Amino acid sequence: MTSTDAATEGREAAALLERTRGLVDPHLRAAVETLPGAIRRVALYHFGWQDADGSPASGQAGKAIRPALVLAAARALGGDPDAALRAAVAVELVHNFTLLHDDVIDEDATRRHRPTAWAVFGVPDAIITGDALLALAHRLLAEDPHPASARASARLADCVIELCAGQQADCALEERDPLGVTLDECLTMATAKTGALLGCACALGALYAEADRPAVEAMDGFGREAGLAFQLIDDLIGVWGDTTRTGKPVGADLAAHKKSLPVVAALTSGTPAAGELAALYRGSMSTPAEVASAAAAVDRAGGRDWAQACAADRMARAVHHLSGAVPDPAGAQELLALAEFVTRRTH
Amino acid sequence: MTSTDAATEGREAAALLERTRGLVDPHLRAAVETLPGAIRRVALYHFGWQDADGSPASGQAGKAIRPALVLAAARALGGDPDAALRAAVAVELVHNFTLLHDDVIDEDATRRHRPTAWAVFGVPDAIITGDALLALAHRLLAEDPHPASARASARLADCVIELCAGQQADCALEERDPLGVTLDECLTMATAKTGALLGCACALGALYAEADRPAVEAMDGFGREAGLAFQLIDDLIGVWGDTTRTGKPVGADLAAHKKSLPVVAALTSGTPAAGELAALYRGSMSTPAEVASAAAAVDRAGGRDWAQACAADRMARAVHHLSGAVPDPAGAQELLALAEFVTRRTH
Repeated sequence: MTSTDAATEGREAAALLERTRGLVDPHLRAAVETLPGAIRRVALYHFGWQDADGSPASGQAGKAIRPALVLAAARALGGDPDAALRAAVAVELVHNFTLLHDDVIDEDATRRHRPTAWAVFGVPDAIITGDALLALAHRLLAEDPHPASARASARLADCVIELCAGQQADCALEERDPLGVTLDECLTMATAKTGALLGCACALGALYAEADRPAVEAMDGFGREAGLAFQLIDDLIGVWGDTTRTGKPVGADLAAHKKSLPVVAALTSGTPAAGELAALYRGSMSTPAEVASAAAAVDRAGGRDWAQACAADRMARAVHHLSGAVPDPAGAQELLALAEFVTRRTH
Repeated sequence: MTSTDAATEGREAAALLERTRGLVDPHLRAAVETLPGAIRRVALYHFGWQDADGSPASGQAGKAIRPALVLAAARALGGDPDAALRAAVAVELVHNFTLLHDDVIDEDATRRHRPTAWAVFGVPDAIITGDALLALAHRLLAEDPHPASARASARLADCVIELCAGQQADCALEERDPLGVTLDECLTMATAKTGALLGCACALGALYAEADRPAVEAMDGFGREAGLAFQLIDDLIGVWGDTTRTGKPVGADLAAHKKSLPVVAALTSGTPAAGELAALYRGSMSTPAEVASAAAAVDRAGGRDWAQACAADRMARAVHHLSGAVPDPAGAQELLALAEFVTRRTH
C-alpha cells in the first residue's frame, strides 16, 4: 500500500468511526440511563458524559472501534447494520465493563486523560458499575428479537470469560520473575485480553448478517489477529510513548514493570541486553534514567524490531482471514480501513 | 401453624434442598469446569469443591435455596422442573458472583467457615472469577433451547442490576451518619440486595413453566417478600448471633458498624436508647462490652421486636402473593416449606 492509500484509508476510518459514534452513542447512552441512580452516575462519568460532580461533559467515550467492527462486519456480509445496533452497543458495554474492572485491578489512576472511576468514586462503586454494564449488555441481547441474538449472547459470554482469563494471566505474569516468562504465554494472554473482544465484535456482526459458520469464524479470526497487532503497537507506545495521542507517558509500562510483548521478546532474546533488562526489572526502576536504560535495552535486544515485525505478520493473517470471509475487496474495505487505523494510530 | 407442622415442613424443606443440591450440583460443577484454569481453581475453591492447594474438598456450596426456588416454582405452576435446570444453575452462579464481589467490597475474610476467595487468591482473582461466573450464567441461558430462556436472561440481567444497586446502596449507607439513615432506605436496599434474587429465582421457575405474566409477577413478589423476611432474620442473627449454624460471631454486624434493619429501626425509634446506640455507632465499638451495650440498646429501642414483627409481616405478604400464583395449597406446599425454612433457620 502506498502512503497515499494509507492516508485515504485513515480518513475513511476516522469518518467511519465518527459515524459509528453518532449511531451508537444515543443507544449506548439510553441503555446507561436505565441504570439505577448511583450506578448511572459512575457510568456517565466513565463514558465521559458527566464530570465527577454530575455536570454535563463533552464526552470522550473512546473511539468506538468495537461497535464500528460489529456494524462493518454485518455490512460486509450483506447484513443490515441497523439491525446489529444492539449488538454493537452490547460489545461497547462489555469493553467498558473490562476497563472499569481492569483499572481497579491494575490500580491505574488515569484513563482518557481523566481520573479513573475508582479513583473518583472508590473501588466498590467501580466494581459494581462494571458488573452492571456487563449485565446490561446481556439484557440488550436478551431483549433483541433478532434471530441471532441468543447465539450472540452465548458468544459474547464466552468472550467475557476469555477476557477474564486474559486479565488473570496478565496479573499472574506480572508477579513472575522477568526471565521466567515465555513469549508464547504473553501472546496467548494478549490474544485473550485484546484479540478476543475485537474478534467477537466481528463475529457478532457476521451472526447478525446471518452468515454461515465458516464466515463467522473467519471474521473472528480477522478481529483477533488485528487485535493482537493493535496490542503490539500499543505495547510499543507503552515503551516509547506518545503522550499527546494516547495519554500514556513515555516508559509508563517499563516504570510499572509491565511484561509487555516487546519487553518479553527482549527478555527471551538470549542477548546480553536481555540480562541487563532483567536486572532493571528486578529492581525498582524508579528514576527516569533507569526507565530510559530499560527502553534502550529492549531496543538493543531486538524487542522493538520483533514487535513491529510481529504486528505486520498479525495484520497479514488478519487480512487473510478477511479475504476468506469477504472475497470481494470492495466489501472488505471498511473493515480493512478500521484494522489499519487501529494498528497505525498515525491519523 | 402448629409446631408439629413447622417441624414437618422443616424436614420437608431440608430434604428438598438436599435433593436440589444433588440435581443441580453436577450441572453447576460441569459449568464451572468449563472455565479456564486459573479462574476455575478460584471458583472450585469458592464453591467448596477444592481446597486452596487444589486438593478435593467435601463441598460446602451453600444450601441451594435459590435453585430449589426455581425448580419448586416451575413444578408449582405445572412445569417440568428438569427443563428448568439450566435456569436453576444460572441463578446459583449469579448468587455466587455476588458473594465473590461482595466479599471483596465488604472486605469480609470468612464465608462458610473458610477464608474468602480474595483472602486466599487476592482481590484481582476474586473480582475476575466473579465476572466469569456472571458471564457463565448468561451463557447457560443463551445456549438453552427452552422458549423462555431469552426472557429469563433479560430478567436475570435486570435482577443483577438491582443486586448491584442494592450493594451500592449498602456501601453508601455504611458511610452515612447513624442518625441520617431512614428505615425506608434500608428496606429498599435490603429488597434489592436480598429480595431481588429470590424473587427472580421464583419468576424464572414460572417463566420456564410458561406461566402467564401475572403468575410470573406474583412468584417474583413471593420470593422478594420471603427474601426480605430472610434478611430480617439474618440481621437479627448478625446482632444476637448463632455461630454454630451460620459461622457469624455474636455482634459481628455491630462491631462492623453495619446499619442493618433492626439497628436502623432502633436508631430511628426516637427512644433514649436510640441516642445511646448512635453514640456507640459513631465511636470505634472495639470492645466486647461496647458491642454488648449496642445489642442491648437495639433491644431496648425496640429494634429486635420490630424486626421480628416485620419478618412475620413480610412472610404473610409472601404467602399472599403465592396464593395468587398457586391457588391450590398442595401445589404451593414446597415453596411455602422453603420460605419457612429460610426464615426460621431452626432446622
